[in-house]
Amino acid sequence: MTGLFAGTFARGGAAAAVSDDAWFRALLEVEAALARAAAAAGLVPATAADAVTAACADPSRLDLAAVVAHAADAGNPVPPLVRALQAAVGERDAVAVHVGATSQDVLDTALLLLARRAVAALDADLAAAAESCAALARAHRDDVVVGRTLMQQAVPTTFGLKAATWLAGLDGARLRLAEVVASLPVQYGGAVGTLAASRGAGTAVRAALAEELGLVAPAVPWFTTRLPVADLAGALGAAAGVVATVAVDVVLLAQSEVAEVAEIGEGPAGQARGGSSAMPHKRNPVAAISARACARRAPGLVATLLGAMEQEHERAAGAWHSEWPTLTDLLVTVGSAASWLAESLRGLRPDVGRMAEAVSAAGEGSLAGALAEALTPSLGRGAAHDVAAEAARHARETGRTLAEVVATRTDVDVAAVLAAAAPDVGEAGAQVDAALAEHEQLVEGAP
Amino acid sequence: MTGLFAGTFARGGAAAAVSDDAWFRALLEVEAALARAAAAAGLVPATAADAVTAACADPSRLDLAAVVAHAADAGNPVPPLVRALQAAVGERDAVAVHVGATSQDVLDTALLLLARRAVAALDADLAAAAESCAALARAHRDDVVVGRTLMQQAVPTTFGLKAATWLAGLDGARLRLAEVVASLPVQYGGAVGTLAASRGAGTAVRAALAEELGLVAPAVPWFTTRLPVADLAGALGAAAGVVATVAVDVVLLAQSEVAEVAEIGEGPAGQARGGSSAMPHKRNPVAAISARACARRAPGLVATLLGAMEQEHERAAGAWHSEWPTLTDLLVTVGSAASWLAESLRGLRPDVGRMAEAVSAAGEGSLAGALAEALTPSLGRGAAHDVAAEAARHARETGRTLAEVVATRTDVDVAAVLAAAAPDVGEAGAQVDAALAEHEQLVEGAP
Amino acid sequence: MTGLFAGTFARGGAAAAVSDDAWFRALLEVEAALARAAAAAGLVPATAADAVTAACADPSRLDLAAVVAHAADAGNPVPPLVRALQAAVGERDAVAVHVGATSQDVLDTALLLLARRAVAALDADLAAAAESCAALARAHRDDVVVGRTLMQQAVPTTFGLKAATWLAGLDGARLRLAEVVASLPVQYGGAVGTLAASRGAGTAVRAALAEELGLVAPAVPWFTTRLPVADLAGALGAAAGVVATVAVDVVLLAQSEVAEVAEIGEGPAGQARGGSSAMPHKRNPVAAISARACARRAPGLVATLLGAMEQEHERAAGAWHSEWPTLTDLLVTVGSAASWLAESLRGLRPDVGRMAEAVSAAGEGSLAGALAEALTPSLGRGAAHDVAAEAARHARETGRTLAEVVATRTDVDVAAVLAAAAPDVGEAGAQVDAALAEHEQLVEGAP
Amino acid sequence: MTGLFAGTFARGGAAAAVSDDAWFRALLEVEAALARAAAAAGLVPATAADAVTAACADPSRLDLAAVVAHAADAGNPVPPLVRALQAAVGERDAVAVHVGATSQDVLDTALLLLARRAVAALDADLAAAAESCAALARAHRDDVVVGRTLMQQAVPTTFGLKAATWLAGLDGARLRLAEVVASLPVQYGGAVGTLAASRGAGTAVRAALAEELGLVAPAVPWFTTRLPVADLAGALGAAAGVVATVAVDVVLLAQSEVAEVAEIGEGPAGQARGGSSAMPHKRNPVAAISARACARRAPGLVATLLGAMEQEHERAAGAWHSEWPTLTDLLVTVGSAASWLAESLRGLRPDVGRMAEAVSAAGEGSLAGALAEALTPSLGRGAAHDVAAEAARHARETGRTLAEVVATRTDVDVAAVLAAAAPDVGEAGAQVDAALAEHEQLVEGAP
Repeated sequence: MTGLFAGTFARGGAAAAVSDDAWFRALLEVEAALARAAAAAGLVPATAADAVTAACADPSRLDLAAVVAHAADAGNPVPPLVRALQAAVGERDAVAVHVGATSQDVLDTALLLLARRAVAALDADLAAAAESCAALARAHRDDVVVGRTLMQQAVPTTFGLKAATWLAGLDGARLRLAEVVASLPVQYGGAVGTLAASRGAGTAVRAALAEELGLVAPAVPWFTTRLPVADLAGALGAAAGVVATVAVDVVLLAQSEVAEVAEIGEGPAGQARGGSSAMPHKRNPVAAISARACARRAPGLVATLLGAMEQEHERAAGAWHSEWPTLTDLLVTVGSAASWLAESLRGLRPDVGRMAEAVSAAGEGSLAGALAEALTPSLGRGAAHDVAAEAARHARETGRTLAEVVATRTDVDVAAVLAAAAPDVGEAGAQVDAALAEHEQLVEGAP
Repeated sequence: MTGLFAGTFARGGAAAAVSDDAWFRALLEVEAALARAAAAAGLVPATAADAVTAACADPSRLDLAAVVAHAADAGNPVPPLVRALQAAVGERDAVAVHVGATSQDVLDTALLLLARRAVAALDADLAAAAESCAALARAHRDDVVVGRTLMQQAVPTTFGLKAATWLAGLDGARLRLAEVVASLPVQYGGAVGTLAASRGAGTAVRAALAEELGLVAPAVPWFTTRLPVADLAGALGAAAGVVATVAVDVVLLAQSEVAEVAEIGEGPAGQARGGSSAMPHKRNPVAAISARACARRAPGLVATLLGAMEQEHERAAGAWHSEWPTLTDLLVTVGSAASWLAESLRGLRPDVGRMAEAVSAAGEGSLAGALAEALTPSLGRGAAHDVAAEAARHARETGRTLAEVVATRTDVDVAAVLAAAAPDVGEAGAQVDAALAEHEQLVEGAP
Repeated sequence: MTGLFAGTFARGGAAAAVSDDAWFRALLEVEAALARAAAAAGLVPATAADAVTAACADPSRLDLAAVVAHAADAGNPVPPLVRALQAAVGERDAVAVHVGATSQDVLDTALLLLARRAVAALDADLAAAAESCAALARAHRDDVVVGRTLMQQAVPTTFGLKAATWLAGLDGARLRLAEVVASLPVQYGGAVGTLAASRGAGTAVRAALAEELGLVAPAVPWFTTRLPVADLAGALGAAAGVVATVAVDVVLLAQSEVAEVAEIGEGPAGQARGGSSAMPHKRNPVAAISARACARRAPGLVATLLGAMEQEHERAAGAWHSEWPTLTDLLVTVGSAASWLAESLRGLRPDVGRMAEAVSAAGEGSLAGALAEALTPSLGRGAAHDVAAEAARHARETGRTLAEVVATRTDVDVAAVLAAAAPDVGEAGAQVDAALAEHEQLVEGAP
Repeated sequence: MTGLFAGTFARGGAAAAVSDDAWFRALLEVEAALARAAAAAGLVPATAADAVTAACADPSRLDLAAVVAHAADAGNPVPPLVRALQAAVGERDAVAVHVGATSQDVLDTALLLLARRAVAALDADLAAAAESCAALARAHRDDVVVGRTLMQQAVPTTFGLKAATWLAGLDGARLRLAEVVASLPVQYGGAVGTLAASRGAGTAVRAALAEELGLVAPAVPWFTTRLPVADLAGALGAAAGVVATVAVDVVLLAQSEVAEVAEIGEGPAGQARGGSSAMPHKRNPVAAISARACARRAPGLVATLLGAMEQEHERAAGAWHSEWPTLTDLLVTVGSAASWLAESLRGLRPDVGRMAEAVSAAGEGSLAGALAEALTPSLGRGAAHDVAAEAARHARETGRTLAEVVATRTDVDVAAVLAAAAPDVGEAGAQVDAALAEHEQLVEGAP
């Protein structure tokens, strides 16, 4: 992806969390933690571990250009990085560099550290989007809006229930991401997973390393059983899907013909976003559109990661490598989608007057339902349904309202039918309250 | 998929769990439970609910051919099913049919019931595969085998550790599936989610329905926020990936040139499987190959389900529908993959003698490492590595063993280097024990 | 996929073209053609080839149940099929069965025969859909409709141009499918591709077999270079995408708030389709919705086929097998999408009055553009645009039409601006004519 | 993707062809060509078009930072670019900027220009890889190697035929890419496709623009019927699949246990690539491994592009945008895969001695086939096959060679059977010649 499109596709904090710079720092953070873990296990002197930690904390001491130059030849950047680190600390303290480790130990662990940070960044945007939904749900708890199924107007619901549904989706996606992040394991196994180069202290080093980095210590390496990557992929893909379903609702509600919401976004200079050069009167919901664009890149990337789970023997010949740019891109695009959605919802302006008008105009539909209901005792449900459909068609074709047509019937209690057709949003309010209560619990339960 | 290929691609119990017949039964099971829930909430007479339950328990009373005939016209099979059910119970008890519900309520809930059963079926195969791995890990805890990275022989590990790694992957996939299944929600919202047709008892009916079916009662409908489907997709995709990574190892270890395992599978008539018509001497690991074939269908299906999460308004115009065959196919193919893997591992015959020979022959590699290690104090790590690589190349080019070349060196303690190069599998055994212990916990913790 | 959903997801002729029965017939057709090709090359007596041809023409003579029973054990159905065929023709004529062939020769060739037939079936539906578009383009060549970009009303276009754009897409997809079908190759290489079992006549048999079946004879086998499958996948995926983009337009134009088209579909019994049980007044565009649902299953299946192109050595261990159900499903779902789209367009009823009303109401937009244009000479383009946007906002906020606001300006030629804002559909008509001309050429050029 | 991994995942010329800089130049190239086309059609003065051309040729005159800053707010970079260009040429000549165009006209056309260049760059690598295959096919036309099916040794083939098969795959992929590139259309339709802002000269401008840029002029805009993007996606996905299947063969043949080829790659400083820090004796086929890693990213990206074909009305709200980074990534990763494969094959060193040894050792297999063949006249094909399989098993179990076992039989002509079992590579040579002849034709036919 090019910088020209970064404003659209690399928005939010996730992109920075997986930058080149972040990768270097994460790789060095793992090497430093490993040095300390090896020292704690008695494998190397604490002074050497301190020297490694100090070198890792100051990347300017390392020849990172050489690392970049040699990364592809080694198949991954860790071998040249280890060399640069050894050079930086000098021969004596080099004993504490990369103790008992293989490249994949460091790279996998760094990848999960990056993922954890990127998820934290994008989760902040998901949380902001969720708060906007909660605010909308509270503010519009009882404001009626036409419910639409299969893109057709159906019967009324409330804008509060719409927002509460979005909220529940976003909260669910966040919960799953949190579970995955909490389960991410350290990688430490040495060349083929036996810990043979760790002089008997391998599992101790693994435990200490996990402790250092706040990761889980697994019983065996996960060099070729890639559940942590798959779990991240699944949770990120699900989050993208929730973002997309909220965004498409915003786009649809903002259609010129519907116009029940507008996105009052502002660009960096405070000017309105979404204007069209050719058509000055248009206002496009750019943030929701961009959220959709970013979110729809996720499923293909998830599939690539799942397809890469078939990894050979003790280290895979290609599938492993393909995870790096793919998981990185997935984090960036889901992060960007979350950022755009947060922005869209922050500036979302519902037009409750317009919503109410549409409900009123759509009363015809409710009326057909009420008529069918009223006819059911005498005709049975199927025939009643058919008669009501016929009446609705008749009204359409004769240019009258269905109420006028109903008023001429003698086979039903007209007043009762008309009353029954008044907008009824059932338990919408109670459900909004329940979703908000669950949301409060989630927010309070957060660390 | 056609029946001609069903033996390969629709193996195991999952396929039966999502058959046409199973779909009908699940839809009727939901309708029956809904009738009882409505009765419990006081919306309909218990006698009517009993009549509905009785009709649902005996599908032969329903005109299912008519349901099939009209399903596509309605967009889904529930409207004609409801009509058939109403006809079966008669006008009086029809009040207890489909109370307050919309088609999606019944279809979504039935889909999750099916998924739960299909997952139970495929999980039994995953469990069997895991038990085989556990048995292999125990039996071969200390049997050395060449570790291979990037498809090249590296240093020794144990076959026990290989099996324990497979085991950890399978157990992890099972745990995630169990979590997802335990979180599956009921769907009940009525036309647009407000529960308006449930006469004030909607949330009570939802709770009772969830209780009836052993599902979770959500705060709001999930008509267009499809996290339950996404969670299933993610967990199934991850399970497929674990199956594939075990299967590819079996296929690679069974290569003619490696021959460290063989699949002693038998066909239905007890005859050996995997023979070739053109080449009678061949024995193909058909079960592992078939497991790979089935597993690799999963990622694309997962992507389709995640891509379908963008659903419009209160019910989607197409994306929702696309879930039915896709989730069904995903369950079938992952189930089939699990079944094949269980079969492959059940008949897996490791050749520990051959493994040991390869380790011995590959000692050259360990020796190069040992030489580098021995030279590091004097030359520094980088130069020592280069010298050892040069010695290995020299040995190859002169047709001698590396041991012979090493024996001529005066700059190292030759005996110590040779000793250091003896196969060292580090903490392989301890890790096997740890993985087995975790497995035992999982097995004991299972319901 | 279950039969319960076959009306939706296995519609049209493609499903039948890839049924079990069709598979058996295609496999036998290849074996028969191979027998004749071997006879033509002098490898077997013509009488034996005739006997094989006769047996293949009458599947009832073969024990197909045994083939199904043993297909999975062999890894594919050809070995048991060959056995059944040998048994059917007797020992003497069995010399003409499967001459010099390997299972993959027969299976790959049969797969492409099936694909060719399924494409022919679905192409008939694409052609019908294209004809409907052509008819709409002709009938509504000059009927104005609001153009919509980013789901916002923009400036006018014609319904004819919309239909012509759909037409061009469908014609393009058909052309590509025709090219792919014309390039499909026969497979014939024997066990590992050398033709060693064809007694020196292998390339001659290959040529004769290709001639028999109307396929291309390649220079070498394509056992593991799967371009024919990839080409089919790509062309089918593209066709699905075109179907989807037409279908989404129908769904969006049919929205209650837009209502510029309606789908006047009928179910099998002549009754209107798309009614809702809960809401008798609704009419859902079921055919377009179903087309979307079917089409969106395609991309994931294409990805699976492309991902399966990495095939090992002379025959792949799993990836090859995964093609069978995946390509089959792709053909069925694209065929079903095409069938639904043909049905949707056949019954599409545009409401040109309603379209014209919307154009008129949206004139405000054109007016803003015209105002900006008029102000550009004096203010420069940027400032003119800003002033026009401000005027539009002012009109909105004060509840007046933009025409009223413009009429008060003294800095522009008001009459000229109003004239410039009259609906202008530019070269829409000429473009419609051009697309129709290209379509006629395509139709005439068809075989 | 980060620069740290660019050496692996952004190799070859395609990455540069789609850089930020390349994007800017392509967008400006389209604007310049459009100005000239408008002048040719008489819409603007030639002097103004020349001024625009001059400004576009010197991007340093434009405020590109402002373009980047405002791209996301506009939803795409064209509106701010147009503003910058207008500012650069001054008010008088601004009439020739962006004449009659909409953002999508410029962006779509620029995207295809970029794609054409990136494909040219990656095609050069595919061509180099094909030449290496042709050279290998010629040099090893008759060198025997064990054919392997389902990862098991089968019967002999030649390394020449293997290389010729790779060649045919690469040539086929190149042909398809060339066809797609030759069919790429210009985009020019104005706001909603009517050409209304082109003052009656729209189709003339479109034709002139196509002529200027060497693209095809379509009958109607393809704003939402995205066949050009789908065709590129399909052809690139197919190319990636061919690269992957060659690369996996290299990886498998380079396995320690097979060792029939080695990759003699060199890093930038002439040092051997693929060494392992932990294991100095290892030599990994890094180029083939990296080719696999890059290629396997393609299918998911293709699926994203196909899934994005469902585009709404006259311009899509998100799906269109998602194409930019996705097609870009696809070009880069396929380009990188092609570059790695070219490198792998350039340095591929086949070990024909080792291949011959394996054929000899595997003669057992041929022998079993020969035995079955010899027994067929007396026993019938099925029983003969069973007896041969039994003999092979017996030999294995008693530790003798099959030749020894066969020599004891009295029911066959032992000498004839042994002769028949001599390596027979059938028409491998003739097929190699045919593939090379087709390759020569392709090379000569190239522009």
